[in-house]
Amino acid sequence: MANQQPALDTLFHALADPTRRAVVGRLMRGPAPVKQLAEPFAIGLPAFLKHLAVLEASGLVRSEKRGRVRTCHVEAARLAAAEDWFAEQRTVWQGRADRLAAFVESQPAEG
Amino acid sequence: MANQQPALDTLFHALADPTRRAVVGRLMRGPAPVKQLAEPFAIGLPAFLKHLAVLEASGLVRSEKRGRVRTCHVEAARLAAAEDWFAEQRTVWQGRADRLAAFVESQPAEG
Repeated sequence: MANQQPALDTLFHALADPTRRAVVGRLMRGPAPVKQLAEPFAIGLPAFLKHLAVLEASGLVRSEKRGRVRTCHVEAARLAAAEDWFAEQRTVWQGRADRLAAFVESQPAEG
Repeated sequence: MANQQPALDTLFHALADPTRRAVVGRLMRGPAPVKQLAEPFAIGLPAFLKHLAVLEASGLVRSEKRGRVRTCHVEAARLAAAEDWFAEQRTVWQGRADRLAAFVESQPAEG
């Protein structure tokens, strides 16, 4: 678990921005060239490339260059790694709810 | 959806740190006083309080003061809001997988 911590740091940091989340959402539908990915956003290409660099550093997005076109795709397994953290928290929460229910049931009924 | 974007920004930012994730994980087991929460971490109380402020700004953690003791609890519904974003992405991904399967099935079999 401990060695997953830096990975989760960069994953959640990458997702803490609306442009970067939108890029991930777009790539979930399929790979796309960088220029096409950048089009919907009202920011310059250099600013967009910085967002892409953060996404690539997190492992959420990979890209390959063929000729003059760089194409990006999403690594859905990395997204699943972040989602796993939430599943772990839900398990802890559920355990607490179960203990609470057991405690309530163990009390003598009033009335 | 658009008005959820700032909320998701602060949520994912709050989770992009191992101390803050550990505090959330601890609070999933039940409420705790600030001083008890801070104990496991090798950082000073002022630094810990900064992390707590980030968690409170995200809505993930709330605290109440009674007398001289401030007690924190987690807002599991806020965590669920972040998790929902992943569920949406998985739906998009699944739609893509389904379309791909339909396309493959629509092709004449090679013999």
